[in-house]
Amino acid sequence: MVIIMEAKATEDQIDNVVDHVNKTGLKARVVTGEERTIIGVIGDERYLEEAHFKTLPGVENVFRILKPYKLVSREFQKDSTIIKVNGTLIGNGHRVIIAGPCSVENEDQILKSAHIVKKAGANMLRGGAFKPRTNPYTFQGLGVVGLKLLQKAKIETGLPIVTEVLEAADVELVSEYADILQIGTRNMQNYQLLKAVGRINKAVLLKRGMSATLQEFLMSAEYILSEGNHQVILCERGIRTFVEYTRNTLDLNIVPVVKKLSHLPIIVDPSHGTGRTDIIIPMSLASLAAGADGLIIEVHPDPEKSVSDADQTLSPEKFEELMVKIKKLDAILS
Amino acid sequence: MVIIMEAKATEDQIDNVVDHVNKTGLKARVVTGEERTIIGVIGDERYLEEAHFKTLPGVENVFRILKPYKLVSREFQKDSTIIKVNGTLIGNGHRVIIAGPCSVENEDQILKSAHIVKKAGANMLRGGAFKPRTNPYTFQGLGVVGLKLLQKAKIETGLPIVTEVLEAADVELVSEYADILQIGTRNMQNYQLLKAVGRINKAVLLKRGMSATLQEFLMSAEYILSEGNHQVILCERGIRTFVEYTRNTLDLNIVPVVKKLSHLPIIVDPSHGTGRTDIIIPMSLASLAAGADGLIIEVHPDPEKSVSDADQTLSPEKFEELMVKIKKLDAILS
Amino acid sequence: MVIIMEAKATEDQIDNVVDHVNKTGLKARVVTGEERTIIGVIGDERYLEEAHFKTLPGVENVFRILKPYKLVSREFQKDSTIIKVNGTLIGNGHRVIIAGPCSVENEDQILKSAHIVKKAGANMLRGGAFKPRTNPYTFQGLGVVGLKLLQKAKIETGLPIVTEVLEAADVELVSEYADILQIGTRNMQNYQLLKAVGRINKAVLLKRGMSATLQEFLMSAEYILSEGNHQVILCERGIRTFVEYTRNTLDLNIVPVVKKLSHLPIIVDPSHGTGRTDIIIPMSLASLAAGADGLIIEVHPDPEKSVSDADQTLSPEKFEELMVKIKKLDAILS
Amino acid sequence: MVIIMEAKATEDQIDNVVDHVNKTGLKARVVTGEERTIIGVIGDERYLEEAHFKTLPGVENVFRILKPYKLVSREFQKDSTIIKVNGTLIGNGHRVIIAGPCSVENEDQILKSAHIVKKAGANMLRGGAFKPRTNPYTFQGLGVVGLKLLQKAKIETGLPIVTEVLEAADVELVSEYADILQIGTRNMQNYQLLKAVGRINKAVLLKRGMSATLQEFLMSAEYILSEGNHQVILCERGIRTFVEYTRNTLDLNIVPVVKKLSHLPIIVDPSHGTGRTDIIIPMSLASLAAGADGLIIEVHPDPEKSVSDADQTLSPEKFEELMVKIKKLDAILS
Repeated sequence: MVIIMEAKATEDQIDNVVDHVNKTGLKARVVTGEERTIIGVIGDERYLEEAHFKTLPGVENVFRILKPYKLVSREFQKDSTIIKVNGTLIGNGHRVIIAGPCSVENEDQILKSAHIVKKAGANMLRGGAFKPRTNPYTFQGLGVVGLKLLQKAKIETGLPIVTEVLEAADVELVSEYADILQIGTRNMQNYQLLKAVGRINKAVLLKRGMSATLQEFLMSAEYILSEGNHQVILCERGIRTFVEYTRNTLDLNIVPVVKKLSHLPIIVDPSHGTGRTDIIIPMSLASLAAGADGLIIEVHPDPEKSVSDADQTLSPEKFEELMVKIKKLDAILS
Repeated sequence: MVIIMEAKATEDQIDNVVDHVNKTGLKARVVTGEERTIIGVIGDERYLEEAHFKTLPGVENVFRILKPYKLVSREFQKDSTIIKVNGTLIGNGHRVIIAGPCSVENEDQILKSAHIVKKAGANMLRGGAFKPRTNPYTFQGLGVVGLKLLQKAKIETGLPIVTEVLEAADVELVSEYADILQIGTRNMQNYQLLKAVGRINKAVLLKRGMSATLQEFLMSAEYILSEGNHQVILCERGIRTFVEYTRNTLDLNIVPVVKKLSHLPIIVDPSHGTGRTDIIIPMSLASLAAGADGLIIEVHPDPEKSVSDADQTLSPEKFEELMVKIKKLDAILS
Repeated sequence: MVIIMEAKATEDQIDNVVDHVNKTGLKARVVTGEERTIIGVIGDERYLEEAHFKTLPGVENVFRILKPYKLVSREFQKDSTIIKVNGTLIGNGHRVIIAGPCSVENEDQILKSAHIVKKAGANMLRGGAFKPRTNPYTFQGLGVVGLKLLQKAKIETGLPIVTEVLEAADVELVSEYADILQIGTRNMQNYQLLKAVGRINKAVLLKRGMSATLQEFLMSAEYILSEGNHQVILCERGIRTFVEYTRNTLDLNIVPVVKKLSHLPIIVDPSHGTGRTDIIIPMSLASLAAGADGLIIEVHPDPEKSVSDADQTLSPEKFEELMVKIKKLDAILS
Repeated sequence: MVIIMEAKATEDQIDNVVDHVNKTGLKARVVTGEERTIIGVIGDERYLEEAHFKTLPGVENVFRILKPYKLVSREFQKDSTIIKVNGTLIGNGHRVIIAGPCSVENEDQILKSAHIVKKAGANMLRGGAFKPRTNPYTFQGLGVVGLKLLQKAKIETGLPIVTEVLEAADVELVSEYADILQIGTRNMQNYQLLKAVGRINKAVLLKRGMSATLQEFLMSAEYILSEGNHQVILCERGIRTFVEYTRNTLDLNIVPVVKKLSHLPIIVDPSHGTGRTDIIIPMSLASLAAGADGLIIEVHPDPEKSVSDADQTLSPEKFEELMVKIKKLDAILS
């Protein structure tokens, strides 16, 4: 941590800050400049809060040097994590395509979906049984019935299942059916839920919060790892900006940045990230070109009849078209 | 709902949209323009999704006319809601000042805090027992012990208690101690939690999510009302923008807008909303001048020693100064 | 400047950074931490660019300590600037109300406007003769004819004139008619224009850019002061965020922050800042309560007939109502 | 245009709106719903302002149906524009790579740069002679001397020149040296400058404003086309968001959306768009995969010695690495 004193800070104020630093068990090193004094803090600052020093008299600003996350950082683990789910590898060059409908609606729909995505060459099936809906008056998902239908689809096609869990109390139940538990964007900072999935032995797909900074995103992953579960896949799904032509602003820049700072794999959700069926294909290709370890995409046998997210769902034909292009791109990516 | 067809939409496509509208039980009215056809949908569209129509062939855009929320709207209830908590009124000109430390730290700290805020003229005591922390390695709150300390402070001072609840499983427990249950910004769209507090008979303080639109904010309140609990107080606490000089951008514009659209009271949290001790006083006065029904403010007997949020907490002296200014302002506000 | 080295930085890399610092004529002070080395730069860093050091091998991050602006800062000038325009004072507790139509439309409209705002108690008249319009096909202002009409209104009422200048080539012309030259939000970083108004002896109203950080805003003011003109009034007019219920997000937080960092006065434009007639009154009061040195407000004799900005313009009646409330508020503000 | 009346709107208010529509020469079509009346406006609404109707009594909201831009729209011109600059084609599958230093610094630097980018296979040379700098105390460009050096580089290598013009008064001068005139992000809404470049016969590279919506971006292009110059290349260069790990948020989503709405080519600037040397390569590939018609990239013979933008500039080696990858990608893109 570096503490910048105000130009007019007194010697007493500087001494007082040094005292505060010493009390934390760390060491202070004072550097006297022409206009200002700065105080370097030496030692493991991970448990310190900037706020604590910012309020001391004479302090102008405080910069953190060490990142507050540890287990998820590439400094902690140099090699990229590779996650194995039912034989499919994710991370470090192994790219995964997860596809399926927004919600599990009925047996016919989910089985058809599973066969469509399998035929096109996807690796896993997605589908929501517990749905977090903005509107209390709309369809909230089939719940356990939906989980059982996903299981049926898995038995028929062999595709592993990715599905969302909404609260800590449901983690055990959803784990019985899912191969990857999804934490949705609205729950990225639901710490009770993060801790709960941190205690199981299943891969977790952690979606970025709508306005999460990179540090907040990684800290949420750190919550899961800190409880013992290291099988975390990050997922960029669009952020909230002033932009009006996409529902969210898919932020692909995070992909190469995450790869520098963390060893965890990161995939992209261009369906939620853009909210526009008509640009999912180019943005999927862009995601992989930016270095993503995979995609999660909404596909429905008949998008117009989809009970939710119809405007960001690919038809079977469009999904096949995408998979053909992905294969061509895959061949030239290292 | 108004459906705008593309300039090149065919008659068949227009007929197809009309068919889809009719199937929902509503009526379609076709208006043929010079360049485009628009289709008005007549009937209660509250349960329809725009997405469903947006994907039909030939459709360019879909606008919703009716708001998706109902119980929270001023159209549904013309008179402003007044919430009564242990004799204190909130809403429709009744302004409440809630103050206290970020976290309950120990008996001495919370009792001192209670006496300070009471003496200065505040109406209620705030303090966190269950803390949602970004960092898994920092203080997570005293839990039940904290709740019991808050109770003690209430017995000593008579101040009603406002404290946060983090998950549905804790609602019953927290209700035993709290007079107002707070839903934090990270949980604004934790629908399981919203439903749980919707089933109790206690006032709920619903904080706006960091990037919540007004509609999302009101829909979250609608979740609570739709379960039966109409005692909801909204709270603006800053949004996430590009701005770098405040931790969040306190968005006071929402105050007069909420008052037009909803009958619910709305208060402001300038502590979290700005993250800067040095501007809490002017922004508190601005909040009330904008029409807020109250404030929730962080006050600590010794901010420098606060375990959390030290840089957005008022000292007892500054809080007294603020209360004097609030009283002067109060006298000229209608 | 503080330079943070990577954990794995070598001694050679540290020496190389020290060499680079020395070459700039400043001094480097090395502080060796447990995990990382930091290098403090001693001397006037105002002319250094962080970017230059960020790219050196082994450097993780660079923090600037001294602000890049100087003349506008409160460190440079401790006392608040008071600007005097035709006898009216602005700044340091002297609050100004500037009002009038978006555009000068014709003689009748601008004279009526002038009498309305004067009668209600405003200090100055605003009105656009050169209009920066998003749409090339809409009204672009009356130009010189508009300036002459403003002059007529000034002669009739005695109100000083505030009007916009769009390019360096027009500065001389507009100066002949205006008492305060306005630099619009789209031109906040039009440095040729800033330099041009920096060379005249008239007050300048500098509007914040739609997505300007505080530092960029103050640097634009610095451009004007650095050319010799110190009569600059800053103006908050709303920023671009994800928020959908106001055209812009009026960011009142900047008011008390500017007052800490700069000696220049700052006023608020709630008309453009919100884009909503129905909330201009509460947001005007909030602006003054937050400490603003004045307001600039759109008023039109007949808003429905206004050629531009009809939806953010007060009627004469509403403006009078506002002025009555302002006077009450003024009495209790220090 | 569709005008939505309030639920409580009276017949008189509806009649009044119809009257207003009729006065504009367009036709009103009234659709009476169960809760609300909507009024469709038939005719060319391009010159109408929503604001005008929004303020009429009883009106709740107004939606524009026709876009306000015309010449730039794909409805106006179905085939993609292909721009030809000294034999190089841009648009409709013809991709261009523009590269070079941020600023022209001296003869050696710009000639070296030109040879580097030519050797690596780029099509054009960029370099700034007139620089818009946030800081008035830093290097502002070599001006005419810089233009002459660019000319020298062009003579030596044959590479066409792309350079920025800052004000209308300089358009003629810069046109003598440049093959493409660049309008920078800060000037996207400098309408005097847009009109000036609209009157010349040279290609214009129009950079997106830092917080420009798509409509504003296209309207700025419309300004240029409306003056007669149809050779406009759009350029995405990052938007301002809350994100902290990139200087701007490169918004690739706009690429496929622009291609739907407009016939103009669009290229991407990953240097300014990210501000990070270390992610320019993946984001360049992502840009092309998203469908961009080219890239503009900062390259410097010795980035550490660059007078500006050192932290977003590729070294010759990195640029060569990128060009190799671009060629592989190019082969599989249609």
